[in-house]
Amino acid sequence: MTASPATSHDTIRAVQWQGDHLRLLDQRLLPREERWIDCRNAGEVTQAIRDLAVRGAPAIGIAAAWGVVLAAQQGAELDQALAQLRAARPTAVNLMWALDRMKGRIAAGADVVALEREAQAIQDEDLAANRHMGELGAALIVPGSGVMTHCNTGSLATAGYGTALGVIRAGVSAGRIEQVFAGETRPWQQGARLTMWELVRDGIPARLIADSAASHLMRSGVVQWVIVGADRIAANGDTANKIGTYQLAIAARHHGVKFMVVAPSSTVDMATANGDDIEIELRDAAELLSVAGQRTVVDGADAWNPVFDVTPAELIDAIVTERGVIERPNAKAMQAMFGH
Amino acid sequence: MTASPATSHDTIRAVQWQGDHLRLLDQRLLPREERWIDCRNAGEVTQAIRDLAVRGAPAIGIAAAWGVVLAAQQGAELDQALAQLRAARPTAVNLMWALDRMKGRIAAGADVVALEREAQAIQDEDLAANRHMGELGAALIVPGSGVMTHCNTGSLATAGYGTALGVIRAGVSAGRIEQVFAGETRPWQQGARLTMWELVRDGIPARLIADSAASHLMRSGVVQWVIVGADRIAANGDTANKIGTYQLAIAARHHGVKFMVVAPSSTVDMATANGDDIEIELRDAAELLSVAGQRTVVDGADAWNPVFDVTPAELIDAIVTERGVIERPNAKAMQAMFGH
Repeated sequence: MTASPATSHDTIRAVQWQGDHLRLLDQRLLPREERWIDCRNAGEVTQAIRDLAVRGAPAIGIAAAWGVVLAAQQGAELDQALAQLRAARPTAVNLMWALDRMKGRIAAGADVVALEREAQAIQDEDLAANRHMGELGAALIVPGSGVMTHCNTGSLATAGYGTALGVIRAGVSAGRIEQVFAGETRPWQQGARLTMWELVRDGIPARLIADSAASHLMRSGVVQWVIVGADRIAANGDTANKIGTYQLAIAARHHGVKFMVVAPSSTVDMATANGDDIEIELRDAAELLSVAGQRTVVDGADAWNPVFDVTPAELIDAIVTERGVIERPNAKAMQAMFGH
Repeated sequence: MTASPATSHDTIRAVQWQGDHLRLLDQRLLPREERWIDCRNAGEVTQAIRDLAVRGAPAIGIAAAWGVVLAAQQGAELDQALAQLRAARPTAVNLMWALDRMKGRIAAGADVVALEREAQAIQDEDLAANRHMGELGAALIVPGSGVMTHCNTGSLATAGYGTALGVIRAGVSAGRIEQVFAGETRPWQQGARLTMWELVRDGIPARLIADSAASHLMRSGVVQWVIVGADRIAANGDTANKIGTYQLAIAARHHGVKFMVVAPSSTVDMATANGDDIEIELRDAAELLSVAGQRTVVDGADAWNPVFDVTPAELIDAIVTERGVIERPNAKAMQAMFGH
């Protein structure tokens, strides 16, 4: 495969398998710089996940699968590679899901070629799921709507096209969405740096807002849907996603704005009963104490930096996966679609 | 008067009259640098207000009053100085209130010395009001509480001590408040840069959070009150304050957390019936597109940057002014305390 870093608008591929190494678009540097990182073993993939060079729940899972292929190619200890990759980040279940899938193939005696095929299947299925979710989600939106999104759930966060951003792309194409608002997403600014980058590349009319301006925006009546991705969806529909998602869901309900979660079924974790059981990653206070590498807060200050939160199912109007749409999710509806 | 820029902990004075010029602590550079600006005429004061070197509704009013004194000392056209200062920023009513008070003295034939006395009275009364509000607000808080605040409402935003931060100072002193959380307050980071600076100087246990982490924090149960300032309080209790305040009020109500607004009575605008009539300042998109002087968003991106919002009275549990506390504010209770 000879994928080129140069990409046309609808084919940004931030995770590119190169036959003997994994090429990742370094998302920490966007939009200022499009720098690619070559990971040559599972340890380098682990580090890229941990350090956020690759981020977005589906993209993390895909990258980890390729990390296992690298370990297999090099005759490395596979159990160790699996364990290392699994520990890279705690909240996104897609990571565990992709590794379990690779582990299952290893247990079944798959050789390197078969493992490479499995990783490629994980990646291809994610792209196909995104396209399908785009159609399903867009169909829920009344023509002429305004929408708001949070974090980055686009091509950069997935195999391509995106989850929530895929629905937005499909909705704009279909003439259902007229305007898009993206929250900055402190502290990493994924909305400001990454989502705006994707939207501007696609020529989609979009405006950035401060995360704390969302309620004021909703009150003005121009937003009909909040559309977000997910890092883990529990068996009752409770959804872990980027910090700030829960606050948007509360604000949406307060204003009668609808709230949609879009994620591949690999994000559903039926082994987790509800959101209280989801581990929320706490990251270093330093991420809040500096901005763009510059210390902005007085020395001696402390910060509390949870990077995900849980939105209870009762605040969610629709969960969209490639298997279909669940409106007003609860444990029973989730079991019917994802049980067994 | 020979006020020194060097100050002890409880006597930060960001607005200092120097007899023939006004000295302002440049709040854009804190906490990295404590640089003072000397304004020698009303035009320079106007620019300092417009460019946010001085900010915080009460501090803006006080600075503007001194701007009128400078115009009077120099024999400048006072109507023109008043008009120029009034137009510097639209949302904070304290600016209009202080200028109206100076205008009333001018109309009554006050000389330069009398105008200087009036500006000093405005400043001294603000400090006294803050001390009194601190006691009143702290008395509402159950011992052992956690509180959260937004933006900066401390010594920097007032004649000293602070409004919401004054209540927090008083509450900590009285042993009623055990921990404090401050929201960053995008895009200018007043919470991160200024409130944390004041809290650390005072040795108050405080942690910074992303604005979008507030709901996740409230859900954890450690916060009993959200305490904020105000830029304008309408006749029915609707309150304009820093963007994000409204979102905090919605989140507080959702979690059963109480919500307190603290502001001097000069912030009350009985001529404005309700929040719909308050002009909300929209500032340049550029403030969201760059961070710390560095462009963070792709070229061609647009942003929507309202810097205030309105919290409806029904989401407010208490309005605290130096005249007293109004619980569950409405037009009738406001009229009883502030009418005539």
